[in-house]
Amino acid sequence: MPYFDVASAAPLHPVARQALQASLDEGWADPARLYREGRRARLLLDAAREAAADAVGCRPDELAFTPSGTHAVHSGVAGALAGRRRAGGHLVVSAVEHSSVMHAAEVHAAGGGGEVTEVPVDRTGAVSAAGYAELLRPDTALACLQSANHEVGTVQPVAEVAEVCAAAGVPLLVDAAQSLPWGPVEGGWSLLAASAHKWGGPAGVGLLAVRKGVRFAPQGPADEREFGRSPGFPNLPAVVAAAASLRAVRAEAEAEGARLRVLVDRIRRRVARLVPDVEVVGAADLRLPHLVTFSCLYVDGEALLHELDRAGFSVSSGSSCTSSTLTPSHVLKAMGVLSEGNVRVSLPVGTTAEEVNAFLEVLPRAVASVRSELGLPGAPAAPDAGAGEVTVDALGLRCPQPVIELAKAMGRVAVGGVVTVLSDDEVARLDIPAWCAMRGHDYLGETATAPGPSYRVRRTH
Amino acid sequence: MPYFDVASAAPLHPVARQALQASLDEGWADPARLYREGRRARLLLDAAREAAADAVGCRPDELAFTPSGTHAVHSGVAGALAGRRRAGGHLVVSAVEHSSVMHAAEVHAAGGGGEVTEVPVDRTGAVSAAGYAELLRPDTALACLQSANHEVGTVQPVAEVAEVCAAAGVPLLVDAAQSLPWGPVEGGWSLLAASAHKWGGPAGVGLLAVRKGVRFAPQGPADEREFGRSPGFPNLPAVVAAAASLRAVRAEAEAEGARLRVLVDRIRRRVARLVPDVEVVGAADLRLPHLVTFSCLYVDGEALLHELDRAGFSVSSGSSCTSSTLTPSHVLKAMGVLSEGNVRVSLPVGTTAEEVNAFLEVLPRAVASVRSELGLPGAPAAPDAGAGEVTVDALGLRCPQPVIELAKAMGRVAVGGVVTVLSDDEVARLDIPAWCAMRGHDYLGETATAPGPSYRVRRTH
Repeated sequence: MPYFDVASAAPLHPVARQALQASLDEGWADPARLYREGRRARLLLDAAREAAADAVGCRPDELAFTPSGTHAVHSGVAGALAGRRRAGGHLVVSAVEHSSVMHAAEVHAAGGGGEVTEVPVDRTGAVSAAGYAELLRPDTALACLQSANHEVGTVQPVAEVAEVCAAAGVPLLVDAAQSLPWGPVEGGWSLLAASAHKWGGPAGVGLLAVRKGVRFAPQGPADEREFGRSPGFPNLPAVVAAAASLRAVRAEAEAEGARLRVLVDRIRRRVARLVPDVEVVGAADLRLPHLVTFSCLYVDGEALLHELDRAGFSVSSGSSCTSSTLTPSHVLKAMGVLSEGNVRVSLPVGTTAEEVNAFLEVLPRAVASVRSELGLPGAPAAPDAGAGEVTVDALGLRCPQPVIELAKAMGRVAVGGVVTVLSDDEVARLDIPAWCAMRGHDYLGETATAPGPSYRVRRTH
Repeated sequence: MPYFDVASAAPLHPVARQALQASLDEGWADPARLYREGRRARLLLDAAREAAADAVGCRPDELAFTPSGTHAVHSGVAGALAGRRRAGGHLVVSAVEHSSVMHAAEVHAAGGGGEVTEVPVDRTGAVSAAGYAELLRPDTALACLQSANHEVGTVQPVAEVAEVCAAAGVPLLVDAAQSLPWGPVEGGWSLLAASAHKWGGPAGVGLLAVRKGVRFAPQGPADEREFGRSPGFPNLPAVVAAAASLRAVRAEAEAEGARLRVLVDRIRRRVARLVPDVEVVGAADLRLPHLVTFSCLYVDGEALLHELDRAGFSVSSGSSCTSSTLTPSHVLKAMGVLSEGNVRVSLPVGTTAEEVNAFLEVLPRAVASVRSELGLPGAPAAPDAGAGEVTVDALGLRCPQPVIELAKAMGRVAVGGVVTVLSDDEVARLDIPAWCAMRGHDYLGETATAPGPSYRVRRTH
């Protein structure tokens, strides 16, 4: 029963389990106390901090343990912005940051004087250093960039962006949640956040590194623990387990990364061949070793996940179709790629070729099964047959139906003819242009009409 | 080697350890995911929430898990204040709340429009419902009261205060960190915060209950987890262990509480007889079953803790002498009791009479040993001998020296004579009046002089 969603959460690493159990006896007391139980706890905490700092590539006194990666991001963004309040209230983030960064940015924008600018990405999900350089201003207080994307695996040019930021005197906060198990983040970053349960550490532990010299003003109620950067009683056994397992996964990272990279390459190649109407998204080379994402036309993502789950595979999705909010993944949206029928596969350490092969065997059947329940488009009309204009009323229909209706209507217009789709589904805005790009038809744009926008597409072949 | 500081942190309860280990295999995945590992995690989370809510005495959908008791307090205070912003910015807290409440109040006072009023306590550390009634105003947004004090164990009249608050339409947040293992908090509270490592649960888990109908606006970046009240990936194995161990300690609470109450009564009685110049503080009857605090005149608290640690006993202190900040415990200060040589004993479940007897044997020797290193006051002058006025320069001396100098000088004035102590030690402000109360001399008050205040005392006998 393979679990292919470590980008969400990894099963506990054996070293984490050992360290956790060992420190339950030694690490429950308050490390701030002077009696022997407190001193023992302090020794464990200090050792864990040294090990984690070594893996991050910073000094122990630059590294605070937080209750989660989300807390590390929230505290890091708020503290860095407050520390640079005199410079201004401008925050720059990439358009594909994790939701924890986006939500921290929203709070900043909602506060007095806060302004947020998003750096666009290319179709692989990558930013460019030039993209940051363009947006940095004298009043920019902070820039944020992930080391690698959590949905599509694309690795970002952190070192180059850090140079651009340093030249502008702007600190750079790196969300390293997805890449830290694979190696330290290169380049001159100023702050770094990460999350232990992404590398097989326990839940309940995040890391926040703040380089010496970076202006930082912790927000919220005062608390002297963790250099004043993370309130609350320290979660010591979990912290010890997090540090020990980070060291352990790092020891395996090179060999295991190379092995998983081959498996992911195989998935990228085979999925494109085995599944009709699929788009493999994200960078092919500059990517995390273990993660691949693809979207399937005419597929209800949630139904596909259920189908794969029934077949024994646990995968994830950025598809709008799986979300209760019915809004598409902001990452896929920023990339301008198809979001429907989206599947993210992220392989845990130790995944075998057999497991991947089994997945590749199951997947095409699962996609076909899900598609068979929807009315799929038939053969298109001959190039010169059919109408010149067709309007499709897809109001009230949800992803992937509007795109299916479009594809069907395309079969009813002649080459050069135009299909207009009326759709109030937020996802259509993303998936209709993506479908056009995949199919090679001309996307003519969107018009604001009531009760929902209309999208126009010209048949080209 | 007895550990007598569960008010700080309790060793892991065997049930917590079992539950933690069992749920490491089942509870590492994201409970928001739809695949089987996610569904398993969701089942564990739901069951833990039901068990914890049952112990708290609220509905499961009123209870959020937080990363610590501190987080529960910080989020609870901020969310309740924001939810009642229209009513006003006035916050009422008792003068003896835990520092997490005090720090949340400080942040509120520092923000625009925030005002904080403290409810005074009597010499046992208890508030009165009348004390709250007097301070509630039409613009009071929130009142806070601990269920029992963390330093002296005094139980607060929560139900009465809740009635007063309800009559005024003000929600009451109860910090139940110290009392929750012993039973649910009675009365009509609106919000409740607690911390698992205080009852033998693991670190990394707090509880925040918000009753239906209480206006609550979570602060900070958005996060849909835990009803939007606690961001970050859920610390599931620890949450499961916390809920299981709360249930377990509750099953033992009545019998164990009665047993420990007898041991603590014994400590209260014997310490007062065995140790000269000691003040046992806190309520004698309306108190936590397992906790007792006393202060020893002419004793450096940190030295005493070291002495007891060497003898094998781990205890804690609210004494200024152990703190790096050199400010006295705000709790002892609000009570107006002696703070020097302060020792807090909080017995873990299972403490034996033999361990308590061993402590009572060691304690007088430890106090005598610490005192022997300080120059203690000799016999006082005859009632009619000695000067009429003596001034003591204790500038630069730290607790307990100013009080020792006062006691020595008292031996040099006649009855009716006055000793003036110059001291820039923050603790003298607390301990000189407390010494006068213990010794039955007249404290005449404090005068602002440079470079530090002067304190005047009249010899009465």
